[in-house]
Amino acid sequence: MVRDRESTANQGPTTGVQSGKFVEEVEVRGHIIDSLILPKILDTITAAGGIFTIKNIAIGQSRHDPSFAVVEVQANSEAALQEIIAQVSDHGAVSTTQSDAITVAADIAGAFPEGFYSTTNQRTEIRLDGHWVNVGLQEMDCGIVVDSSTKSARCIAMTEVQHGMPIVVGHAGVRVFPEGRKMERQSFEFMNSAVSTEKPKGVAIRQIAEELHRTKLNGGKALLVGGPAIIHTGSVPYVCELIRHGYINKLFAGNALATHDIEQDLFGTSLGVHLDRGDLAEAGHEHHLRAINRIRRAGGIRPAVEAGILRSGIMYECVKNNVEYLLAGSIRDDGPLPDVITDALVAQQTMRDSIRDVTFCLMIATTLHSIAVGNLLPAWVKVVCVDINPSTVIKLNDRGSFQTVGLVTDVEPFLRSLVQDLKELEAVGN
Amino acid sequence: MVRDRESTANQGPTTGVQSGKFVEEVEVRGHIIDSLILPKILDTITAAGGIFTIKNIAIGQSRHDPSFAVVEVQANSEAALQEIIAQVSDHGAVSTTQSDAITVAADIAGAFPEGFYSTTNQRTEIRLDGHWVNVGLQEMDCGIVVDSSTKSARCIAMTEVQHGMPIVVGHAGVRVFPEGRKMERQSFEFMNSAVSTEKPKGVAIRQIAEELHRTKLNGGKALLVGGPAIIHTGSVPYVCELIRHGYINKLFAGNALATHDIEQDLFGTSLGVHLDRGDLAEAGHEHHLRAINRIRRAGGIRPAVEAGILRSGIMYECVKNNVEYLLAGSIRDDGPLPDVITDALVAQQTMRDSIRDVTFCLMIATTLHSIAVGNLLPAWVKVVCVDINPSTVIKLNDRGSFQTVGLVTDVEPFLRSLVQDLKELEAVGN
Amino acid sequence: MVRDRESTANQGPTTGVQSGKFVEEVEVRGHIIDSLILPKILDTITAAGGIFTIKNIAIGQSRHDPSFAVVEVQANSEAALQEIIAQVSDHGAVSTTQSDAITVAADIAGAFPEGFYSTTNQRTEIRLDGHWVNVGLQEMDCGIVVDSSTKSARCIAMTEVQHGMPIVVGHAGVRVFPEGRKMERQSFEFMNSAVSTEKPKGVAIRQIAEELHRTKLNGGKALLVGGPAIIHTGSVPYVCELIRHGYINKLFAGNALATHDIEQDLFGTSLGVHLDRGDLAEAGHEHHLRAINRIRRAGGIRPAVEAGILRSGIMYECVKNNVEYLLAGSIRDDGPLPDVITDALVAQQTMRDSIRDVTFCLMIATTLHSIAVGNLLPAWVKVVCVDINPSTVIKLNDRGSFQTVGLVTDVEPFLRSLVQDLKELEAVGN
Amino acid sequence: MVRDRESTANQGPTTGVQSGKFVEEVEVRGHIIDSLILPKILDTITAAGGIFTIKNIAIGQSRHDPSFAVVEVQANSEAALQEIIAQVSDHGAVSTTQSDAITVAADIAGAFPEGFYSTTNQRTEIRLDGHWVNVGLQEMDCGIVVDSSTKSARCIAMTEVQHGMPIVVGHAGVRVFPEGRKMERQSFEFMNSAVSTEKPKGVAIRQIAEELHRTKLNGGKALLVGGPAIIHTGSVPYVCELIRHGYINKLFAGNALATHDIEQDLFGTSLGVHLDRGDLAEAGHEHHLRAINRIRRAGGIRPAVEAGILRSGIMYECVKNNVEYLLAGSIRDDGPLPDVITDALVAQQTMRDSIRDVTFCLMIATTLHSIAVGNLLPAWVKVVCVDINPSTVIKLNDRGSFQTVGLVTDVEPFLRSLVQDLKELEAVGN
Repeated sequence: MVRDRESTANQGPTTGVQSGKFVEEVEVRGHIIDSLILPKILDTITAAGGIFTIKNIAIGQSRHDPSFAVVEVQANSEAALQEIIAQVSDHGAVSTTQSDAITVAADIAGAFPEGFYSTTNQRTEIRLDGHWVNVGLQEMDCGIVVDSSTKSARCIAMTEVQHGMPIVVGHAGVRVFPEGRKMERQSFEFMNSAVSTEKPKGVAIRQIAEELHRTKLNGGKALLVGGPAIIHTGSVPYVCELIRHGYINKLFAGNALATHDIEQDLFGTSLGVHLDRGDLAEAGHEHHLRAINRIRRAGGIRPAVEAGILRSGIMYECVKNNVEYLLAGSIRDDGPLPDVITDALVAQQTMRDSIRDVTFCLMIATTLHSIAVGNLLPAWVKVVCVDINPSTVIKLNDRGSFQTVGLVTDVEPFLRSLVQDLKELEAVGN
Repeated sequence: MVRDRESTANQGPTTGVQSGKFVEEVEVRGHIIDSLILPKILDTITAAGGIFTIKNIAIGQSRHDPSFAVVEVQANSEAALQEIIAQVSDHGAVSTTQSDAITVAADIAGAFPEGFYSTTNQRTEIRLDGHWVNVGLQEMDCGIVVDSSTKSARCIAMTEVQHGMPIVVGHAGVRVFPEGRKMERQSFEFMNSAVSTEKPKGVAIRQIAEELHRTKLNGGKALLVGGPAIIHTGSVPYVCELIRHGYINKLFAGNALATHDIEQDLFGTSLGVHLDRGDLAEAGHEHHLRAINRIRRAGGIRPAVEAGILRSGIMYECVKNNVEYLLAGSIRDDGPLPDVITDALVAQQTMRDSIRDVTFCLMIATTLHSIAVGNLLPAWVKVVCVDINPSTVIKLNDRGSFQTVGLVTDVEPFLRSLVQDLKELEAVGN
Repeated sequence: MVRDRESTANQGPTTGVQSGKFVEEVEVRGHIIDSLILPKILDTITAAGGIFTIKNIAIGQSRHDPSFAVVEVQANSEAALQEIIAQVSDHGAVSTTQSDAITVAADIAGAFPEGFYSTTNQRTEIRLDGHWVNVGLQEMDCGIVVDSSTKSARCIAMTEVQHGMPIVVGHAGVRVFPEGRKMERQSFEFMNSAVSTEKPKGVAIRQIAEELHRTKLNGGKALLVGGPAIIHTGSVPYVCELIRHGYINKLFAGNALATHDIEQDLFGTSLGVHLDRGDLAEAGHEHHLRAINRIRRAGGIRPAVEAGILRSGIMYECVKNNVEYLLAGSIRDDGPLPDVITDALVAQQTMRDSIRDVTFCLMIATTLHSIAVGNLLPAWVKVVCVDINPSTVIKLNDRGSFQTVGLVTDVEPFLRSLVQDLKELEAVGN
Repeated sequence: MVRDRESTANQGPTTGVQSGKFVEEVEVRGHIIDSLILPKILDTITAAGGIFTIKNIAIGQSRHDPSFAVVEVQANSEAALQEIIAQVSDHGAVSTTQSDAITVAADIAGAFPEGFYSTTNQRTEIRLDGHWVNVGLQEMDCGIVVDSSTKSARCIAMTEVQHGMPIVVGHAGVRVFPEGRKMERQSFEFMNSAVSTEKPKGVAIRQIAEELHRTKLNGGKALLVGGPAIIHTGSVPYVCELIRHGYINKLFAGNALATHDIEQDLFGTSLGVHLDRGDLAEAGHEHHLRAINRIRRAGGIRPAVEAGILRSGIMYECVKNNVEYLLAGSIRDDGPLPDVITDALVAQQTMRDSIRDVTFCLMIATTLHSIAVGNLLPAWVKVVCVDINPSTVIKLNDRGSFQTVGLVTDVEPFLRSLVQDLKELEAVGN
């Protein structure tokens, strides 16, 4: 048992060149064993060609005690060393040589200075004038801009950089707090480690229902990111019910979901398939184009609802229930509907502004929009990704957060069961 | 409009060598246009390097009128010609030169004579002494053995051939009746032409429920062919309910389904996963082996039920409700359970005997068993194949029958919805 | 045999209400049996709830003789009848009551008048002043605008419509010529009817090589539509070779392909994976962001090549070999690179202008871009779609052209073999 | 830094009931941090509802130093405690209370006594009379039988148990040595942790070639486990070349691979597809049945080769080059060929006997046979699993050995590249 965790501190941090080797010492704290943080760090060092020496380690005796380790990293060149330090810092390893974050003024608008610090989606702090301050608007694959007047910092996208902005470079004075696994194994985590079609689905769906229910009760914001399979599979009534009962507070989708939803209201079909009869004959493939045309003639979705042209469906319910919706364009869109934001950067910025208060995100049957939103969300927002195609779920799971759960299942029966489970939870709640 | 459909009959059939070309005339009747039979025949001829000439054609004016065509086939060699005739005969084309079927006595047990007629799963007749007789026990990839005493014929597997049996050779005197699309587009056919994950699922499930309900009402026999994902996904209660309510009359499965079903009863887990809590921790991977061992110690599934060792689950319900079950072995089996038929040929023969009275077959989440059963069933038995993996469904659909429907969906929500829909149908029925 | 194909013409066309039924007569010509055109038309009528009567049919005796049919369509309402006529017209059925195309002036910019004719990707003609004229710029899901001064017509996207433009409405005076299967079964068609992973791949790859080789020899234009898996799988050298040898004349891709290609040149990695060593450790996930940043600092890809910053790879070769490239943005893009067209409508219009002279299109490992391009291409442009994921290939195949071939295979070994086969063809050619 | 790893040993092992809790102490040695062994053990304890306390830990300073930990496990009941101990023992945790293994005589043939020790595929020792002895014939999901006369032990399948055999029960006196990750990150491991279609494939294939080359040079035995897609994709020539050059020493397959291989020799087709022309028309679907019939008439594959009936292909090369082949039957087999072992238990036993000297196993395009062989192989045999379908590769990877590598790629281009790479290695080798 290791108690005297500070006993070796007097060895002093080891940094610099030692007999032709480049060395730096990092420390890491938290549930570093059971959240696999320490193994990942050691793995990263070796994989990048470095050598590690564990200088000090103290492992909590039980699950409730956090652990602590000091690791010396050795590499063949200063560049290799800094690359390794950069990588392990994403797992929460911080140099023991503490210093303030270093900034360089942006010399060009729309680009970072070389050597910029590239953010993760984990909670991050930087050291300014000897104090650690939280980085705002956390988002992966951004830079960090410092406001020296307010001693604050925030993430900033490359395209937003303006000339002269002080941008953090290097890893000095930056520390990351990886989301650890929670002390108690939460039901929500149950599918964490694996994507499989062969899991008890009823349990999974019930837990997602509980999460949605809790989000509503707690005044959280639930975001639905959805693809057109929601319409094609006949799931519109379930999503409408979720909206009407306040379980969905925002909707991000593309032209296709909205178009086929509207097509169903106007023509009773989705991609020409009669949803009530399941009649799959090639009928009405033009319907989606006529639906778009009619909404364009009306001036948009909201005007079409107000004019009584659009009378049911997901988009109708969004308008009626004041659910914020954002339709982002893509190059395969027909039309598109007038509401679609066709510029990808504008759409990204609009999504970015909208997700700030999202506490739970349900992604259904869309790879493009799910990955786009996954890129914007901080690691601590709970995400459930549902798709019948395992590859979408695998891609989202690569996000690597303990807060992301993948479920390989079919959209319509999933939503049907989800609505049923929510009704039962409401009945119990009353 | 074609009236005088017989007017060219006096041209006489054209067969034989014509200026260096080998020629034979075939005719085909039925819904040859809208069931795509004629296009397939013309396609087959050309694809095999032959040339066709349509000598006579009469197309019914409306859907209710059958059509008729006489096609002359021309090839470069007698062998090529016979190959083409063999292929088009599987689509119902019959030589206009009518003759009795030709048989050759089997010279070896367990093998057909060279040139044997290879069966399809379509209804088939052979001509004996100038009369067309139905071929019994229709099954694909068999031969036809003739019983000259009773003027009857039946399909026979290669391994069953005994020395001296008269086996049909060549295509003369054999005619096939491809299952046509029904006159009215039946609801059951709705997913015929395509395997897609993006179809209205609620409609599909309701129609399968109606089919099961109808089967029960009409005294048909419903066969469930199932894989272990039924257990892993937590679907045991739904299958048990189907069995108890008489919707499933037979069960074909493998060692894995039965083992994990029993594991769930004995240990509450399936492959070590607690099905009630969805707790996926690596717990109890030995349970399935202990479950098998316990049943082996009890002497089998039925003795285990009778001894009170096995108290719930699919196998328990089969025993209690006298549902015939057949467990076929495979080389990846652990154990296996004592009830498993480990020899593939014995298992095939047992399945063959059992499927004779099956009128509806529901295949869920098993490629191996689904294909094995698909090989044995005649084309006119309705088959629904449900799997979350499209590749299984595609393979089954290659069976090419209008009676086979594929549904790409998730097992647990599918069965949950199916049971609900059946309850509603029962409520309406009363 | 039917000879007197015109004998029934004096029955006159049947149109109008007959004893409460709504009736119209259509005719169809070409290889209507073996290209499945007639069965599709009959199927469409029945599926849509109509009734057909074949009033006249003449089927060519052999493959080289075209066929002809007159079909009477009957429906329950005028609306249903017009719906059916609209659908069958997409398969080449033309009303026997010939009339000029009807146009209505657009009352709103950016939208068609209600009842607009919705185009297919098949060759189309409209009748103006009694003469059939070809519709230019053929593209599916567009309208047709008429230039009465030049007696010409062309497809027009919804968003391009200007107030007052004469837009074709209804199906009168419009006829479609579905691409028939070629007289001789071409090697290129070999995979037409099916998407399968279990096909002889060497043969397929050789035939694609022959097609590329022929395209180059004949001065055609080959377009590569590619996804980032080309980079991740280590296939850059093969694509570079195709470009240098003139086999690829245009490239459509997204930010990801270009970014990872550039990342590989600048850092030796793709998504942080060292491509030369296959070292998959989590190394350099920031590289792609640094690569984008560096190109943004340089002002774009071409400036970066000219400044000697970018020295190899696909984008480098495009610049050096004057291969036109188009990078279309999407909401999941990081950065993006300055060359990326972020507005979906601008990107679509740029692609539309660029594909006019494309004669062969190779789509590799991208669903989004493949479908976007597939939407723009006329049916007669040969398309090969290569992906390891069958679902992408299936979606493209739904385009339904005999000119589209899907190949489910792995990108790197595919391109490696393709380059080898092209070398052999060149060696033979010299 | 932790030096005094034994300093706490005098605390003495803690076992037994402590204030209503059930407690046992285990220790684990080796590369317990970077091979994730310790995290897995802690995870297992918590997941099973237990509580851990780390009583002592010593982590090697660098990768070359092994680590050591003593963990106290606490549970709510003796049964729960034993369940946890059983689970962690599979990860190499051994009770600190050392005792001999306990055996119970089998009371029934063909079944283990209740409480039997269930084996893993890891190297295992049991303690007999105070000495640790190696368990022979290591195989997962077996029991351990002791031969007290020779003081030896070996794995035994449930079906092989004879009355009176002494079978190990419980976990006392059993210790497992999990395969650790090798000290140096080997090229062979490169794809360990992930199954992806987006990896540099050329590198992967080259490394498999090197492994095959090394196996041949070192006199190892390479086993090919293959499915029929090898034939359908046109890969027969490559496998034949591997056999002729001594890279494949054994072949395990099913009836389908052998049948279509023979069909190709006899008829030039595989499932009726002409492999040389890629002509996919429906031609010769009967060929496979005729091929089987002809081999049955000849009395088997070897007699058919000797009689000159079978003249090329994989089975032919096996006979000619004395490559041991084993064809295991399944219920979906047609025929089958006379060489097929139709009983699953006999096939398993034959495979079991044959894999003893296998040092490298290449599994291509077969789920059934791959899993069957994966069940039999000890964890230290290197396995490469190649399939275009990720789900097969994922299932094999669940085997969880650092020695198993999955590659999602297409069979024909894979084998084509593999043969090329081997030729280059041979050229270099000479």
